[in-house]
Parts: sequence; C-alpha cells; structure tokens
Amino acid sequence: MNTGHHEASWRLPESDPYAHVETAHYVRLARIAERGTFDSLFLADGPVLFNSVGQRPSGALEPITLLTALATATEHIGLIATASTSYNSPYNLARRLASLDHISGGRAGWNIVTTAGAEAARNFGLEDEPAHATRYERAAEFLDVALKLWDSWEDDLVVADKAAGVWGDPGKIHPARHKGTYFSVEGALNVPRTPQGHPLLVQAGSSEDGRRFAARYAEAVFTAQQTLAGAQKFYASLKSLTGRAGRNPDHVKVLPGIVPVVGSTEAEARAHERVLEDHIVYEHGLNRLEHLLRLEPGTLALDAPLPDDLPPESAIEGAKSRYTLVVELARSERLTVRELIGRLGGGRGHLTFAGTPEQVAGTIEEWFRGGAADGFNIMPAVLPSGLGLFVDHVVPILRERGLLRREYGPRQTLRERYGLPRPANRYATAPTVPAPAPAPATASVNATALA
Amino acid sequence: MNTGHHEASWRLPESDPYAHVETAHYVRLARIAERGTFDSLFLADGPVLFNSVGQRPSGALEPITLLTALATATEHIGLIATASTSYNSPYNLARRLASLDHISGGRAGWNIVTTAGAEAARNFGLEDEPAHATRYERAAEFLDVALKLWDSWEDDLVVADKAAGVWGDPGKIHPARHKGTYFSVEGALNVPRTPQGHPLLVQAGSSEDGRRFAARYAEAVFTAQQTLAGAQKFYASLKSLTGRAGRNPDHVKVLPGIVPVVGSTEAEARAHERVLEDHIVYEHGLNRLEHLLRLEPGTLALDAPLPDDLPPESAIEGAKSRYTLVVELARSERLTVRELIGRLGGGRGHLTFAGTPEQVAGTIEEWFRGGAADGFNIMPAVLPSGLGLFVDHVVPILRERGLLRREYGPRQTLRERYGLPRPANRYATAPTVPAPAPAPATASVNATALA
Repeated sequence: MNTGHHEASWRLPESDPYAHVETAHYVRLARIAERGTFDSLFLADGPVLFNSVGQRPSGALEPITLLTALATATEHIGLIATASTSYNSPYNLARRLASLDHISGGRAGWNIVTTAGAEAARNFGLEDEPAHATRYERAAEFLDVALKLWDSWEDDLVVADKAAGVWGDPGKIHPARHKGTYFSVEGALNVPRTPQGHPLLVQAGSSEDGRRFAARYAEAVFTAQQTLAGAQKFYASLKSLTGRAGRNPDHVKVLPGIVPVVGSTEAEARAHERVLEDHIVYEHGLNRLEHLLRLEPGTLALDAPLPDDLPPESAIEGAKSRYTLVVELARSERLTVRELIGRLGGGRGHLTFAGTPEQVAGTIEEWFRGGAADGFNIMPAVLPSGLGLFVDHVVPILRERGLLRREYGPRQTLRERYGLPRPANRYATAPTVPAPAPAPATASVNATALA
Repeated sequence: MNTGHHEASWRLPESDPYAHVETAHYVRLARIAERGTFDSLFLADGPVLFNSVGQRPSGALEPITLLTALATATEHIGLIATASTSYNSPYNLARRLASLDHISGGRAGWNIVTTAGAEAARNFGLEDEPAHATRYERAAEFLDVALKLWDSWEDDLVVADKAAGVWGDPGKIHPARHKGTYFSVEGALNVPRTPQGHPLLVQAGSSEDGRRFAARYAEAVFTAQQTLAGAQKFYASLKSLTGRAGRNPDHVKVLPGIVPVVGSTEAEARAHERVLEDHIVYEHGLNRLEHLLRLEPGTLALDAPLPDDLPPESAIEGAKSRYTLVVELARSERLTVRELIGRLGGGRGHLTFAGTPEQVAGTIEEWFRGGAADGFNIMPAVLPSGLGLFVDHVVPILRERGLLRREYGPRQTLRERYGLPRPANRYATAPTVPAPAPAPATASVNATALA
C-alpha cells in the first residue's frame, strides 16, 4: 500500500492514497534512501489481490518492472525484487533478473519466496497451495536451474573481432541441459553473464525449511524478530547452518526488520504511534488475523485472548514462521486480540518501537554489536516522511558512532556493498579467483518500501 | 543484436558490439525516435539463445524490463514489447504489461507472439514446439484471460475516503473466474486499471491463423511486404477480416516494415548497401536459411537456386508466413541462395531499399496514399546512425508533405496517438462512452530497435 508499514498510514492527512502505483513516489523513496547511503531498497510482493480494496490501498506494480524504472533514477542503491519460485518459470525469471542486473550496473537482488496461500495458487491453474515442503523442494530446484542459466555465458566469451566476423566463442556457451522433478530447461540463457555474476540472493522465510534453504543459497536474510535474545538465537542458528552447508557464515547477512517511529522526544514519538493506532479499523484486522491463523470467520473476539487450541506450526501449510511469530507474541505478552492487532498493525510482527533518534540508534547499535544482526531492514510506519526522519535524524548518529558509511565512495555492485565476493563461473576453465571483498565493519541498512 | 537490422551491421567501424545489452544505447535510439516524433519504439524477442554467438552480437535484455528503463528516459514515445503467449502465464504477463502502462503513463504496447521453434519449447519443459494451430488456440485463450484481468478493476473503484477508512469499492473488483482449456485463473489482477485501459495490442503473424487472430484482437499489425501490390492485398484482406470479426477496420493499423538505406545520392546509398553486403558471412546465412526452411544442414548450395521440392506452408509448424515469404521471394525473382541471403541479410524479408531521402519519402507516400499501409515500421540497416539519417533527412520531407506530425503536442497515450478509442471496461454499470479519437490523417511511424 506504500504509504508506510503501518496499516493505517494511508489515512493520515500527509498520505497520498495513490502512492503505491506512482513511480514518482518510489523515485522519491529511493533518493531519500540514497541520501542516507542505504544499501538497498526492497519490494515485497505476491501475485494475488487480497480482498482488501475496501480497507486500504491495494495492488502493486510488479517489482522487477518498477525497480527497473528506479535503476535509471538512482546511482548507488541496491534494488531487491521479490519474485516467486512457485509461480514463475526459471528461464523467464532468471532472464528478467539478469536484465535488471545489467540495466542497474550490478545492483539487482532477488528476494526468493515460495508464496503461501491458496488465493495465489488459483491464479496459476492450481486448486490449492502446494504443501510447504513441496514449495521449498521446487524452490531449491528453481535455484539450481537459475544458477546454471546465470553461468551459461562465461565472462570472457565476447571477442568482438569485426575483421574476422567473429563475435564470441561458442565454446564458452553452456546450455543448462537440466532435467529434474519440476523443471526441464535445455538451453543457455539469452542474456550475457551479469555485472554481479548473478543477482544477490535474498530470502525471508524463517521456518525450518526456510532456514535450511537460506543456509544453502541466501546471501542476505530478512527476518522478523521481536526481542534481542530471539534475534541473537536466530542469528547464531543461521550462521551455524550456513557453515554446516559448507559456506562461509560471513557470506550470509542477517537483516532483521525494524519499524521505527521517530519523534524529537519519546512522548512525541508515542503520541504519533497512538495517532496511527487510532486509525486502525479493528474489524479488518480481525479478518486478516483469522485468515493468517486459518480460523473460520467469526472465531475470534476483539477483547479476548487467542484461543488455546490453535494448531501447531507443523499443521500450517502457509506462512509457517509468521504464524508462530504471531501466536508467540500474543501468548508471551498475554495480549488480547485487539492489542495483538494494534501491535501487528505497525509492522506485522517486525520490531516496532517509538522513540527519539538516540533511542532508535541505540537499539540498532545494541543489536549490531550484540550478535543479533549484520544490518537492518528499515520499515517506516509512514512513507515517505518516516524514511526522511530516519535519514535526517538517526543516520547522522549511526555515522557518528561508526556504524554506517558517510558516503558511498566509488560505484560498487550491491554484492560488493555487502562485502560479498562475485561468484566464479562454474564453467570457467581458468577461473579468476575473486579478490575477497573486505567485510564491512559497519551495519548494512536497507529500506523496505512495500509489503 | 541491435547495431541495426542488417546482419553485418555490427562489423562496421562505427558499431558498438556490446550495444545490445547497454541501456544507454537504447536511450539514445528512443530519443532520436522522439526527435522524429515517432509513435513507438518496438522490441522483438524470443525466450531462447540461438546458436549464433560466434556470428554476431547475441542475447537480448528482456523487452518489458528494458522498455521500463526507457519509460523514465522519454516522454512521448510508445513502448512496444514482444512477449510470448506460449511461454508465459497470463496473470504474470498481464501484470507486467499493466505495470509498464502505469509507469510510462499509458505508452505500453504488447506485440503478441506465439513463438515458433523447438529450441524455445525446450526451455519451458516441452520436448518440441506445439503445433501452429495449438499455439494460436492458446494465444486466443491467453488474450481472453488477459483482457478479463485488465478489466478486473473498474476505472472509478477508488474512493480514498480517509475519514471513513474506506479506500475502494470492493463491488468494483471483478475476479477473472476463468476455467478454460489452457488456463485456469481465479482472481482479479493486483494492479489497478491502467491509463490505456489495457496496453495497445500488436500482432505480427501473417499466416492465416495469424491474420484471423489479428482481426479479432490486434490494434496494430507489423507485416513484412516486398511489393506495393502485395502490401495492398494484405491491407485490404486484414481490414476486411477485421470488419467481418465485428470490429471497426479503422481500429487496426497496418504497419509494414521498411529497411531504408539512406544516402545523399542514390549511388551513395547503393554503395553503403554494398559495404554491408560485403560484410555478410554467407556460410552463416546458409545455416540460418536451412534452419528456417527445415532442411538438413548441407542441403543448399550458395550458387544454386532453392530446390523445387520444398514442402508447402501447411506442412510447416514454425514461422509459417515467414517461410512462404522467403520461398516466394526466391522464386519470383529467380534468386540464387547467395542472392537470397544478401536480400534477407538486410531486413529478413522486409522491404529493403537504398535511396535518397526523397526516394524513401516517395515510397512511404506511395504506400500510405495507395492503401498499402496506415504507417510504417522503420528498421534501419545500421543503428543508431540509420535512424538518425532517417529522422534528419526523411522526416522533414514527410512533414513537408503533411504525412507526419510536426510535434507531439499535449501528452497522449499510445492508443490516442494511433487514433484509437480507450476500451470501455466490460463490467462498468454506467460505461462512459469513450469519445471517438480523431483518426490521424498522417502516417504512423514506428521504429524497431531489435530483432
């Protein structure tokens, strides 16, 4: 909906209720984020329209398309698009992401999702959503195909010998020749290898399947964590899983989402938070919560706690980790359904807090230095104003404390910005050993513009 | 390959052999075309890498992605992307095209192709290409679904009542609820109805199936015609088919491709043409011709005519109309294989001619006034220089003769520029009758940047 991560943000006087389909709005966000020397701008997505047009700005431009428009309006910021492995074919999606990487000069990222929910499945010829494990099995095969395709041109293929009439070396083209359970893809990609080798791979599922997948493929992980202790546990577990998968744990960046509501005093910040809460339509939140928890409409009462007899995560085929997060939040803090909706309204499970710039910077420092995060995904409650407040008031403190770069410096790819090496091409006979990128000593800061 | 429509263009000293994957190159082309007040820039495409990296610049950025980058770098020109109905799903493609239409402010067009060839099929899980008729059957159902999806939001759905917390009228959302032979799509699109209602629909197949499809759906048709008489016959036939399909024949624009080689004298133009011919590698052309004609490698000899016993068009499951065009060209002009390759090298069957600006403008006028064309698809032999020569030397003559606008005037959608009405939404209870757009008295001029 893109007037911010708080579900009621569109009702504020300052908000443009058409912002989510206006390119100029996103250009503005991207430029504010570049002013704050952010690493990336991230767009969440799903190929489905939920039954929400009555409630809030609905629909969304397709992320790869929209980020391509932003690529030409920005210079430095990474552009991370969400796309589904369940409802795309590897050849087309690998090609579109490679195109974005070329057009942006190596700033493309792919947030890999398997897309929960029957509503999406029914837009693609299925009767119901595939089982959670099946979705992840397909995702793994999808990645294997996509990575083959992104390697199907060796980096030094082009000779461009005009006199001889020879453009490239056909021996350096490697067809995918993939025959698997879900996909069969014969040819080479019809796009040269990209500036980053392939787009940065991002993942956001925190279920067991999700974490195993991340350990194997992801270079950055978005996660929703409510407490420092919980975030530390997740961080340690993901780094350890990555090591056990045979990869360098430094090569996966853990980026919890935070929803800061910044005020010049704590009281001002809390007052702003209350204004947002007052604009929540609780009946809508009730419907969404019932949908998430797979309950019949009318099961929940606003002023009662969640029922005790909810099914375990293992019985949920949808968004598993989100299900558990919501249930645990309600139980651990003994929230009524109304209070839970208020908490979720701001960040849907991400760490939401109202405070002064110093308090926000303090939390960021505590999490970063405390082994809970390599960086953060900033999800302002209200956009663009909340992003502007963060950049103008929190970013200077982070810079002061040595937690964030002061300027971008020379042009870099998104992967270089994260301190990750460019992947070698699997087919290169004399592979150039990539120089190890210096691991950044500062936190990675990213903005989520849409969810 | 994008250094021009002549296959040897990349070998000229002026040509950049990396142009086809450089956004700046396309921005330059689009701006030259805008200087010439062209209607559109068109990108051909196929989801496959042919075995050609040894011969010429190969691969291509995905057109919707690339045109989105151009949308932000241009103001007026239409942006027509090729995408396949055989290797996409309607929900995703309808959404991406709708996104381009929003981002460009109503300048998106879709060149609908069914994609011939086993090579493409094998990138999408098939063993061989679907039969020609099957591809067109699927294309028709694809269009029916896409058109439903583009109508799934009524134009006046959004009320944006912040005080009441009501954003839109859910009664004005219309799920596709499509269950057909090839597709089953339940939901509404997750993008609001676009500036043009839906992207301009373009088609380029000239087979019988192709023309029937165009008569039913297309608003513009690209076609390869070698002679005025042939073009007049095609024009009359397509207009008549469109009338018989119950549509206004003025609502389909017929746009033959022309490959002008412009010189300040005829001799200079012909000399330039010869330079290009001298750079053709005939052995490569031989391989491609055998592939097109479905002949075993080694069947053809360069200095002999085509064999007499070629199969009829009806036996070809690939690019039917192109097959017939090539065979007829060779037979009617009694060309050897070498001469045929020379002719095809310049425009692959499109009308190629070298001449002065007056001669080029004269042919355009003759075809336009003679009932052979509503406009043209300019396919310069060399890019960007050939487009620049056309704009600087032919366009002024066309303007002088009242055949082309002198300036764009106020911002218009691509469909308005073509003089076509905005399609009404099928679900609107009180449909606003669209004001009939004034039919342009001038020729439509379009540029093809890539093939």
